[in-house]
Amino acid sequence: MADKLAILAGRGAMPALLAEAYPDAVCITFEGLDAPMPRVDARHRFEAFGAFMGDLAARGVTRVVLAGGVGRPPLNPAEFDDFMQALAPRLLAAFQGGDDALARLVIQVFEENGIAVVGAHELLPALTAAPGVLVGAEPSARNRADMARATDILLALSPLDVGQGAVVANGLALGIETQQGTDAMLRFVAQTDQSLRGEGGGVLVKRPKIGQDLRVDMPAIGPDTVAGAAAAGLDGIVISARKVVLIERDRLVRAAQEAGLFIFAEDA
Amino acid sequence: MADKLAILAGRGAMPALLAEAYPDAVCITFEGLDAPMPRVDARHRFEAFGAFMGDLAARGVTRVVLAGGVGRPPLNPAEFDDFMQALAPRLLAAFQGGDDALARLVIQVFEENGIAVVGAHELLPALTAAPGVLVGAEPSARNRADMARATDILLALSPLDVGQGAVVANGLALGIETQQGTDAMLRFVAQTDQSLRGEGGGVLVKRPKIGQDLRVDMPAIGPDTVAGAAAAGLDGIVISARKVVLIERDRLVRAAQEAGLFIFAEDA
Repeated sequence: MADKLAILAGRGAMPALLAEAYPDAVCITFEGLDAPMPRVDARHRFEAFGAFMGDLAARGVTRVVLAGGVGRPPLNPAEFDDFMQALAPRLLAAFQGGDDALARLVIQVFEENGIAVVGAHELLPALTAAPGVLVGAEPSARNRADMARATDILLALSPLDVGQGAVVANGLALGIETQQGTDAMLRFVAQTDQSLRGEGGGVLVKRPKIGQDLRVDMPAIGPDTVAGAAAAGLDGIVISARKVVLIERDRLVRAAQEAGLFIFAEDA
Repeated sequence: MADKLAILAGRGAMPALLAEAYPDAVCITFEGLDAPMPRVDARHRFEAFGAFMGDLAARGVTRVVLAGGVGRPPLNPAEFDDFMQALAPRLLAAFQGGDDALARLVIQVFEENGIAVVGAHELLPALTAAPGVLVGAEPSARNRADMARATDILLALSPLDVGQGAVVANGLALGIETQQGTDAMLRFVAQTDQSLRGEGGGVLVKRPKIGQDLRVDMPAIGPDTVAGAAAAGLDGIVISARKVVLIERDRLVRAAQEAGLFIFAEDA
């Protein structure tokens, strides 16, 4: 029972990847989040967090991995158990901050209850990219200038808990990621009138916010990101090495090859 | 002939407003920019900037107002006159910066040739709003918190020459204006899934960038902005007092009344 790991399944493909890689781990899903898992050991409700923590203790769980985001799940306060009732004031404060505030609270709650929170990227190093070109051409000088500008934008917004992605083409900012996420931003960029963007493709830069706790929330790119970037007329995608999840890595690489996009991991 | 003013007509409604308010001013349009003007004294081409400057001198023009934006007009270098040839290196450098760099260059060129550049807001004070509520309800506490967050986002981006507008609802950033402009951002926000934005409307904040030269480029809102903000489900629009142009002020105010939106001018 020592060092038992529980996979808490949020959205996306990561919970299933972790479940496959860690066959001994306890797999837990939550009502309202339909994570496709190869197996489910227990299903819980956020409103009954006390029961959930009790179940973890009973199973001897000492480490959890928060796999895939949960966004801001709708909570019904009328159904809160005692644990959630006691947590309500801190939860309310966190809800008024950004997503990071909520994430920090979740980690705190686990740690206060003697459970360590580990990052999916620590459990699955192959989830992320080593520095350098993952696929496609070396970024051009123009691409590198656009990368630098997009990174400046993300760094400026980082203290405000906004922005894991930005698109810059020919020095022009065409998209800054907000609550709606990267795919929505890429659809927005795809609609840009050609006269506003000049020649050449531009780049998408995805990186964690400064101080972002990767145990709770990691930026990710996948085949959909490549399709979105291609539709937006970009030359490539730039990610932080070791800090951005590659969803369905093989399909992702193939999609980039077919679309003629580069994926470049920056060591920063 | 002393202190003769020329109105250089860019896009939008402002050139015509100025032409009406200053009946003695010389009205100049440019090929490729179809500004509806009550009168046109001369039509010029950007490629023949030398001839344009010569015309201004011949007419005794000592002050110009750059009325309405011109964006990044397509230029045909093969048709450059000597003036533009000589300007080309500086123009190229400015094109690689943001819009502000281009604006600063245009002002420099006029000033080097002994022509002062005045702001449309100086010529038409009624173009902008005094501090306070222009129309609608007082912003709520929630609105004020959203205003503050949107302003923080714009201030963070300001040094990067990005962002004259941002939308925040319930503390969540839903839109940050990029090259495509405010209306495109509002359409993007209107498509936001309700589950991502929580209860309550949110606000659009429009303000100049720090250090933005209002003589060349002013943020503006008009009836279209109100329609876009209403379609995006916002509670209101916040602008900087005296620094944001109100396009078709009467229609703007009526549109906001009909849509139930406030417009609030912040003294900052």
